[in-house]
Amino acid sequence: MSGLTKEQIEEIKVQRAETKETKRVVSNGLENILYESIPVLDHGFIRVIDYMGDDTSIVQAARVSYGKGTKHVSADRGLINYLMRHRHSTPFEMCEIKYHVKLPIFVARQWIRHRTASVNEYSARYSVLDKEYYIPDAKNLASQSNSNKQGRGAVLEGDNARKVLDLLIEDSEKVYDDYEKLLVGFSKKNDEENGLSRELARMNLSLNYYTQWYWKIDLHNLLHFLSLRADSHAQYEIRAYADAMLETVKQWVPLTFEAFDSYRLNGAYLDSKSLNVLKKMVKGLKVTKENSGLSGREWEDLCSLTDYDK
Amino acid sequence: MSGLTKEQIEEIKVQRAETKETKRVVSNGLENILYESIPVLDHGFIRVIDYMGDDTSIVQAARVSYGKGTKHVSADRGLINYLMRHRHSTPFEMCEIKYHVKLPIFVARQWIRHRTASVNEYSARYSVLDKEYYIPDAKNLASQSNSNKQGRGAVLEGDNARKVLDLLIEDSEKVYDDYEKLLVGFSKKNDEENGLSRELARMNLSLNYYTQWYWKIDLHNLLHFLSLRADSHAQYEIRAYADAMLETVKQWVPLTFEAFDSYRLNGAYLDSKSLNVLKKMVKGLKVTKENSGLSGREWEDLCSLTDYDK
Amino acid sequence: MSGLTKEQIEEIKVQRAETKETKRVVSNGLENILYESIPVLDHGFIRVIDYMGDDTSIVQAARVSYGKGTKHVSADRGLINYLMRHRHSTPFEMCEIKYHVKLPIFVARQWIRHRTASVNEYSARYSVLDKEYYIPDAKNLASQSNSNKQGRGAVLEGDNARKVLDLLIEDSEKVYDDYEKLLVGFSKKNDEENGLSRELARMNLSLNYYTQWYWKIDLHNLLHFLSLRADSHAQYEIRAYADAMLETVKQWVPLTFEAFDSYRLNGAYLDSKSLNVLKKMVKGLKVTKENSGLSGREWEDLCSLTDYDK
Amino acid sequence: MSGLTKEQIEEIKVQRAETKETKRVVSNGLENILYESIPVLDHGFIRVIDYMGDDTSIVQAARVSYGKGTKHVSADRGLINYLMRHRHSTPFEMCEIKYHVKLPIFVARQWIRHRTASVNEYSARYSVLDKEYYIPDAKNLASQSNSNKQGRGAVLEGDNARKVLDLLIEDSEKVYDDYEKLLVGFSKKNDEENGLSRELARMNLSLNYYTQWYWKIDLHNLLHFLSLRADSHAQYEIRAYADAMLETVKQWVPLTFEAFDSYRLNGAYLDSKSLNVLKKMVKGLKVTKENSGLSGREWEDLCSLTDYDK
Repeated sequence: MSGLTKEQIEEIKVQRAETKETKRVVSNGLENILYESIPVLDHGFIRVIDYMGDDTSIVQAARVSYGKGTKHVSADRGLINYLMRHRHSTPFEMCEIKYHVKLPIFVARQWIRHRTASVNEYSARYSVLDKEYYIPDAKNLASQSNSNKQGRGAVLEGDNARKVLDLLIEDSEKVYDDYEKLLVGFSKKNDEENGLSRELARMNLSLNYYTQWYWKIDLHNLLHFLSLRADSHAQYEIRAYADAMLETVKQWVPLTFEAFDSYRLNGAYLDSKSLNVLKKMVKGLKVTKENSGLSGREWEDLCSLTDYDK
Repeated sequence: MSGLTKEQIEEIKVQRAETKETKRVVSNGLENILYESIPVLDHGFIRVIDYMGDDTSIVQAARVSYGKGTKHVSADRGLINYLMRHRHSTPFEMCEIKYHVKLPIFVARQWIRHRTASVNEYSARYSVLDKEYYIPDAKNLASQSNSNKQGRGAVLEGDNARKVLDLLIEDSEKVYDDYEKLLVGFSKKNDEENGLSRELARMNLSLNYYTQWYWKIDLHNLLHFLSLRADSHAQYEIRAYADAMLETVKQWVPLTFEAFDSYRLNGAYLDSKSLNVLKKMVKGLKVTKENSGLSGREWEDLCSLTDYDK
Repeated sequence: MSGLTKEQIEEIKVQRAETKETKRVVSNGLENILYESIPVLDHGFIRVIDYMGDDTSIVQAARVSYGKGTKHVSADRGLINYLMRHRHSTPFEMCEIKYHVKLPIFVARQWIRHRTASVNEYSARYSVLDKEYYIPDAKNLASQSNSNKQGRGAVLEGDNARKVLDLLIEDSEKVYDDYEKLLVGFSKKNDEENGLSRELARMNLSLNYYTQWYWKIDLHNLLHFLSLRADSHAQYEIRAYADAMLETVKQWVPLTFEAFDSYRLNGAYLDSKSLNVLKKMVKGLKVTKENSGLSGREWEDLCSLTDYDK
Repeated sequence: MSGLTKEQIEEIKVQRAETKETKRVVSNGLENILYESIPVLDHGFIRVIDYMGDDTSIVQAARVSYGKGTKHVSADRGLINYLMRHRHSTPFEMCEIKYHVKLPIFVARQWIRHRTASVNEYSARYSVLDKEYYIPDAKNLASQSNSNKQGRGAVLEGDNARKVLDLLIEDSEKVYDDYEKLLVGFSKKNDEENGLSRELARMNLSLNYYTQWYWKIDLHNLLHFLSLRADSHAQYEIRAYADAMLETVKQWVPLTFEAFDSYRLNGAYLDSKSLNVLKKMVKGLKVTKENSGLSGREWEDLCSLTDYDK
């Protein structure tokens, strides 16, 4: 379920109970969910642990002003839209957020490619990993796409699906049982001193095992991460995390989220050839795939973007 | 003086007066000085504008724990010393601080070489710069060192010093007067529309003019910056800023400051040849510059580090 | 002119004359101009000093293949277009280039904001700066724009222009003369030992003085730099450098340049509101500024992008 | 073995056979081993694929000179030692190297924590991974250390060792067999179209499976990586890669390697308390653990560093 033990739930409750005074800028939206565990996948979660700044910090930095933001929300919104539209990214770097994340190792491997964050991961050299592994929900158990070499096709069904799941579970159980055996070894004493060291034994675990880390990033780089990982081309499992994080951004910096939603998530980039075709479309000229000069994929993308009646 | 206008002082007072509630970790040391202007050089300052985390955040990240830090300060101190000693830098990245800094342009040019921070600078393309320039205090008016090609020698005195200062002031005044003339031009209208654009006119100003920026950095990278810029080899003017920032670090994360002070600021790095000489010294063998195999500079450094009686 | 002394021209000639053998990938386009000084502004230049990789290196990295690129240029072009279109940036990081650049200090200050490069700058703490300063060409001597707070308006003319130029030259000459005086001081000896240290004296120079540096960057980050600095919103003086560098990219990685030209330099980003308006335009519906729901600027931008007949 | 197929060996031979002309700086040491596969662990390797610069490039950047390096190797050596000793790191950033590496996934997870490099990894979303997994050599099959929570103790022996190895092999074989089954599924058709998508099936593989990537980094950051990963505290498996890379650095930039060896690999950092104790030792005063004021670990480290006769 929540991926948390009783003890952990207790620790979180204690943190949430304590309120202090600060002169810093405060985001009420984030304060409401601070430390709370937001479930993702079967055993994972994200938790916002700390943050710095809010929408007014962006305005303050853009103006290099002595006070915070402007007097009126509408002026702040206008400036934030302007910054987002013109890709003036440095003011967004002035806000920072820290998450505690529990996630399968194969997701962690995609995630860590983003190098502009700070990470402290649970060490399996130092500690024994818990027995928690990811098994996809039946509705996410997809076959290989036959059009996209790195995508998913139809959902597996019936007996086929059941056998796939059974095998995933069987192997996950076996590698963990054997991990425990390796840790104590096969001598008569059967203890850690004669077992395989933790840093070696861990290599018997499979990539669907959960790990966890603290992950800290500034708002500009977080939005870049989310624009890639909340995208439909991202693997479903990392997208699940990105979607949960989008909600926290909405709570944290509502004006920035609004601008991001319009200028990034739901915007589109057009290359020069597509722009030329577009001009003809707008003029009412008949364009076809053949006379467009675009590749098949580019033509499809342009028509779908503009609802063009082919 | 304070480098602030009445209006700015008022804005700062307003910010300091407002107290909010937060569930985040709070550093009481920093709360006491938040937003306040700490003077540096003749017209500069640093102000802490925002921060995230404290000593317990470092412990929390190092342990990837659910709660904050450990129960006992002594355990936290021990772990922080261990992390500092073994250069485990990532937990220190979990704390973040944001400064508002006013500084001469030639200092800003040294400062900006550190690439691991976020910066928003006041734009002289967009706004007119104030008439504020740096003139060294008499006691910092040094001649060129004749031993160190990038260092300072004796302090200038008497008439010589006076004439140097007079010339610095004369030119600073002239370039600003002319900057103002350039901005309105020499047409009959004598207004901005016929003056030189701000982005061009600014190039008439000299490098001792003040600029300002918001500068945000994590604790690990801040300590690296301070270890270089609070060092005796750094130019006095940037060292003045580093020294002021060291004080804020001490307020913010006292345990980390203590470890930094012992393991970085007052520690020393020894190369393998010097280590070999050291072993002889410890054994009570007589070592001389000649039989040490070290270069003159290395020999001097080693003797001074160990109080060796040459 | 070329901004080079006879000695420097000689050194460059020597470097260009020497040919060695290598097993590495070679870009013939860049070899032709290696080390050569390409003039920018009145005394500046860029020189390509070294490079690593070419178009085939991008293909090789994208495929994680054992050999280089593919067999056919057309397949390489297709893959490079795909990577550029879908913003798969890491393969472009596999190519690296190093420039030697001579540029006015105020340009250097804009340039250095890009933090993803390596820089070694000529040190005015250590050495005396040459007497070389930037004076805009008459055709670039623009007034402040009255529509854009950080842009240029009309070119200054006649007497007004002449007086502006005269004043810029006068101050540039004066601050350098005085810089030389400060360096030797006003004692009877009149030598460096009694002069102001170089690290202090330099602050008397104005921001149009030239500095120089070695600047090294990977292709992905270079293209990002160029997309911002070769843009019409960038200040003319830095754009002049970006334009010169674009030519070197064209020589270096022609397929990548082609893709960059189409997908970045001449492409456009559309936000979600503009996309909705676009759909109406494509359907042949009459749209006006008023019923578009766009801001004035957004409406103008969309019409100009699509040649829409308002 | 070599970890390479016949085809791959052939591709490498072709690359090595082709020699071109260049005006760039050339490192003869690296040219000799370019593209060659240097074996690491049981199936891994490193290969130098490309590079930029050599020792003279560092000197050139430090001096911001027009030619390359200085006339005499001894002057270059002196300058490089000076830069290394005083941690002037930017000139070392001017050299760049690119490796092709094949490594177990658990090693890749440690490696990727270094964020200052560029990486392109083989995609198991896109392609099926080969059946290659890491099994430690008998002499590296260590038990958990009982003094160091993240280290290794004694080597496992006899029957215990054999059973540990057998179990590692058994599970590695099973997870791959089942990976193949998952890829084709359990429908009657038994083909990819009804099998689990590659991006999901891969999660059944264990962390000792091999992956591969192109990894590009500048010399400064490479040396930092090596100082951490060639250290005795690093896990043996990543140290094996670091050791192999150290050899390539020695071939590439011999003067820099020499300085790195003396000032980093075999140097030591002393904190202020240890420095104080050291002064007493050098004076010939008797120091004991008790009166030193050091912790047990610090005392042991200092005595071992100085060969102090406790």
